[in-house]
Parts: sequence; structure tokens; C-alpha cells
Amino acid sequence: MKTLRLELGPRSYPIFIGAGLIDKHALLTPYLPTAQVMIVSNEAVAPLYLARVTAHLNDYDAGSVTLPDGEKYKTLETMNRIITALLERRFDRCCTLIALGGGVVGDITGFAAACYQRGVNFVQIPTTLLSQVDSSVGGKTGVNHRLGKNMIGAFHQPRCVIADIDTLATLHPREFRAGLAEVIKYGLIHDGDFFAWLENHLPRLLERDPAALSYVIERSCAIKAEIVAADEREYGMRALLNLGHTFGHAIETGLGYGVWLHGEAVAAGLSMAADLSVRLGWLGEDELRRIESLLRQAGLPVRCPLSTDRMLRLMAVDKKALDGALRLVLLEKIGQAVVTGDYDRGRLRHTLAACRAEPFPA
Amino acid sequence: MKTLRLELGPRSYPIFIGAGLIDKHALLTPYLPTAQVMIVSNEAVAPLYLARVTAHLNDYDAGSVTLPDGEKYKTLETMNRIITALLERRFDRCCTLIALGGGVVGDITGFAAACYQRGVNFVQIPTTLLSQVDSSVGGKTGVNHRLGKNMIGAFHQPRCVIADIDTLATLHPREFRAGLAEVIKYGLIHDGDFFAWLENHLPRLLERDPAALSYVIERSCAIKAEIVAADEREYGMRALLNLGHTFGHAIETGLGYGVWLHGEAVAAGLSMAADLSVRLGWLGEDELRRIESLLRQAGLPVRCPLSTDRMLRLMAVDKKALDGALRLVLLEKIGQAVVTGDYDRGRLRHTLAACRAEPFPA
Repeated sequence: MKTLRLELGPRSYPIFIGAGLIDKHALLTPYLPTAQVMIVSNEAVAPLYLARVTAHLNDYDAGSVTLPDGEKYKTLETMNRIITALLERRFDRCCTLIALGGGVVGDITGFAAACYQRGVNFVQIPTTLLSQVDSSVGGKTGVNHRLGKNMIGAFHQPRCVIADIDTLATLHPREFRAGLAEVIKYGLIHDGDFFAWLENHLPRLLERDPAALSYVIERSCAIKAEIVAADEREYGMRALLNLGHTFGHAIETGLGYGVWLHGEAVAAGLSMAADLSVRLGWLGEDELRRIESLLRQAGLPVRCPLSTDRMLRLMAVDKKALDGALRLVLLEKIGQAVVTGDYDRGRLRHTLAACRAEPFPA
Repeated sequence: MKTLRLELGPRSYPIFIGAGLIDKHALLTPYLPTAQVMIVSNEAVAPLYLARVTAHLNDYDAGSVTLPDGEKYKTLETMNRIITALLERRFDRCCTLIALGGGVVGDITGFAAACYQRGVNFVQIPTTLLSQVDSSVGGKTGVNHRLGKNMIGAFHQPRCVIADIDTLATLHPREFRAGLAEVIKYGLIHDGDFFAWLENHLPRLLERDPAALSYVIERSCAIKAEIVAADEREYGMRALLNLGHTFGHAIETGLGYGVWLHGEAVAAGLSMAADLSVRLGWLGEDELRRIESLLRQAGLPVRCPLSTDRMLRLMAVDKKALDGALRLVLLEKIGQAVVTGDYDRGRLRHTLAACRAEPFPA
């Protein structure tokens, strides 16, 4: 097992990465300050892992909530179901919520924990590649609004993250590939050597080789932890983690939540951010080709299913906007990203037109 | 005009108290960092003051949302209406929300500000006595759940509070009296001399004498600011501000939100907390009589409309509970409160039975 630590002063916490961690009782229980524990999972994950988590909790007043599966249920209404379950058991503000599942479960559960009685403890047990490398770490929680993705939420850090890589063995291939988009993103924004490693080891990753998986999760979490520690509330460099996301969120909102997986939309967004960076003269065409090639080899989309005008309207609602002006994360090279509002809007239209393509998945 | 300051490090802010402040352009605009401003009010308050606030904002991209009036609309759904309005105008995370109204408007608006894009600026312009002396100060925001009052929320401090005492002149008498309950609370928990002042000056207050009102709002805000500065997140002494509220919230939830005003329920709760304090031998019977007398003279209820068993079930959901045990704020004397779980449960039943009375208002 590998242990990383996200350093945030009094809100610091460990990220445990390894095989078989769900069954390691001693990892979880130190992070449960009182007997009141609510495990939140979904219909896909609960049958696989819920009993194994509750097996640790015989001495606890433990309940569970099983949500429907999918991004389209990442709503205020679903969050309220968790609140209702907590109130029905009369849980107090020292209780703990455990998010057992992928990014959607983690984001909703974290937001419920942020809001219930103005804030209770929570623990992340991510069971997808995407949530293990990205969404379970860093304290961004929230739900979607029909007009924009993740528009209602809170910064609320978990007490610990337990990433059991055994859960990836049974992950649906499409879910697994979606997680790779965020992994590739870390190489692009912060670590050119890691990007090159991914180019060289993608087949082993796609075979879900445990050593390769463990390395990729560690490296991704280490990069994320470093950036979040420097800028928890995204006043500056944390925005780099959103490379591809302004495009990606627009795709998710425009198609309807859950039609594309988040990672798929991010993959197309990475490609579009790279394309715009080339048009602005910041990134080499060879680098764009390497990026698109790696995304394609990972089985991810690199084209946008929505029209230019539709995308521009959808992108106008973005958390990185400042006083009405849309800012984007772009690439100066592989391994170095920058947040900027200083780009030619005409070039953005060219990118959106050039990256337009047939709907995916077919 | 009097200016108090709530000291919370980087989240410190001023509380302006005086006559005619709504028309003082120079007070508000320094707290609007960008042009995007959304004023949230309700159907009762907007016709009186909305145009006067927007008159300052010709150079701004200012919108407004008018909510229905009343505690029963303090819900997640209403909060989502504010979010929708913000997204429809494509407001970014540097926008500012202005809460123009009483406690319900302030609590919902503050919670929307806490959640929109994970947190935006907000300003409080309280227009009721209750919100000027209590709910606009201190950063508690939230909405109700059918199973419990204020169960979904966040700590999110405003950038400033502008309390225009002229707005109290037209306040409905029942709303005005409800605000007095929180004023009396401050005397009880923290300042016996202030309680005695209230005993001596209640007629002037009920006549809404401006000098008396100004003093009462200043003194109340000063006590609240001192306590919140010492314990923003209610790990300790801030809970004292909830004197009467565990009883009061149970009454509000049990009767249905809005049947009693919050301040009315708090008044009954103050009386019940004092009754239990006497039964525990902490408070003198003469002090209980003074408390009930002052509440009655202020036109407030001192009896509980719900049965003992109903109250006990409703009170079990309370944010001051610790690991399942209900804690209460009780009185050691007039001017000194304490939070404790160390009391005889049988005595609590006696208080609930003794304070049971006919429904109010008739």
C-alpha cells in the first residue's frame, strides 16, 4: 500500500492506494469519530462492495443509501435523499458519510456532507479509475443544474481517501477508458515525463496491470495533491486541473448528463484545448498529434458532437469566467498548462469548427 | 450611523446600523467587486425597497429574484430558483448576491451564495428586527427540510451587513414582536444589565422609538459579533446563541413552517429553557418570573403548543446533539447561559408537560 498526503493544514488527509484496501478494517475506522455512519453508494456498486464495507461496522450505528446510477441523477433532489436518510436516523453533526462509488457518488455525497447540519465528516472510497485519480481527491463536491455542470456545490475535504485498485478489475471498459482521460490530463498540465510514460505503457494499462495502475493512480494523486495544497479554493493554479473541462462540461450539458461519460467529454476537451493552443502558436503540431494519438489509443473521443454556436453558448457558463469573460486552460507544451482569457476569439471558433465530428459513441 | 465589525480574519466585515442607509449608495458599492449583482427579495419586501436598492446600480449588470414570502418557502427548491436566475444571466463566480428582506430571505440567499459555483460574494440588507439583530450577522445560512429546521446549509459570511432601522417603522407588529424574542435572548445569555434595560424600556421599544431601536440593534449585534468571532463554526460557545432554539425549532417543525414565526417559537423556547433551569436548581424562580413577564409584555408566547412526546421526538434532531445525546442551552442566571447534556431527562419531561398550553396564535 502507498500512502500520499494532501497537506491542507487542519484539513490535511491521507490518500491510501493499494490492493484489497476495502477489507482493511484498520484503515477506515480511525476516520469515524462517532458511531453514526451512513454509506452512500449506487445500484451498480452497492451489490459488489457495500456488504464488505459494512462488515467493518458491526459496532457502529451504520446505515446506507443506494442511489440510482448515472450522471443524470447528480441533482439537488438526489442530494436531498441522502439528507432525508440522515434525518430519519436522527444522525447528528458528528456523523460520518462514506462515499462508495465513482465520481457521481463522491460528488453528491461530499456535497450532502458539506450541507448536512452545515457540515459533517466524510470519507471517500472511490471505485472507478476516474474517481481514484481525480474526483475523490481535493474536496470539490456538488451537483449539476440543467443549465450547467457542477454549478451547485461546496469545497469540503474528506477525512481520508481509500483507493482499492482491486475494484478496477471489474470496471466496465468504457468507464475505465473514461478514467484514462483524467490521467492523460495530469501528464499534459504538469508532467511531460509522465505523459511519455503513458505513451509507452498504455497497453499494460489497458490490460489493467496492477503495478501500472498503482503507479498511474499514485502519480495522478500526487500531482493533484500538490496543486490542491497550493490553491485549495481555485484562486489560481488549481484551475489548471480543468484542462479540457470547459469544453467537456459544455458537451455533457449540451448532450444531456450521462450521454457521454465525464471522462469522454474531457478527452474531446483535451483535444480541443490542444488544437486551440496550436492555432495560437503556443503548442507544436507534433505535440497535438501525440495528444490525439494517445487519446485515440485509449479508446477516447477527440472530436466534439455539438455545433460551434451551441458550444459557445454552453461554454459561457463556466466557473473560470471572470467578470463575464471566458477563460480557458491551454497548453504551452506537453507538461505545461496556463489559464488565460487572452486569446483570439476567432481562433476559438476555428477550433470548435475544426473539431466538430460525428456523434460518439455511435 | 454606527459601524460594528465582526472580526474573522480574512472574512471580517462591517455591520452598518442607522436610519436611511438603503439610500446611501456609497455604503453598498464598495462591496460589489464586479458588475454582476443579483438582488434577492420577497413579495412583501420588494415593492417597498427593491427600486431604492437598484437605483444605486445603473452602472451594474443587476438582476433580481422575488421569492414568495414565508418560512414554508425556505426550501432547496426555492434556493434552486436563485441558482437558475444566476445561470440564466450567465453570472460567474465573482458575482454578488444581495439579500434584501428578513431572516428567510437572508438564509436562503446566503445558502445560494455559498453553493453557486462553490461560493460567491453576498451582502445582507436585513429589513426586519429579527434579521437586523440576529440572522443577518454571523454567516449561518440554510434551508429547512420537512424533518428538521435549518438542516441543510453552510457557514458563509456576508461581505457587509446594512441594517436600515427605517425599515422597522412599517414592519407588521407580529414580525416586530418576533424580533424582540432574539433581543431578549441576548440579555439572557450574555448581559444581565441589557436584560434589565429591556425591562425598563420595553414600552419605548414597542413604540419603535428610533434611539431605543438603534441601541437594541447595536447591543444585540455587538454580543453576537463577539461570540461569533470567538467561535465561528460553533464548536463551543456559539451554541449559546441557540438558547430557546432547540425547543423553538421543534415547535416550528411540528406545527409546519410558518404557522408560528421563528421569533415566536424562540420566545416559547426561552421560557421552557428557563423553566428547566429552575427545575434543575440553577435559576431562581424570581428570575423565571422576570423572563416570562418580559416575554409576555412583548406580546410573545411563553407556552408550547405541542405534546411532550411530540416535542421529544422533534427535539431529537438537533444540531447541538453529540453522538446521539441531546444537549441544551440552559441558564445559570439572567445574563449567563451554558450548553450541557448533563441534565435529568425526567426534569425535561416535567418542563414540557408544565409548559404545554393552548395553541397560539388563537
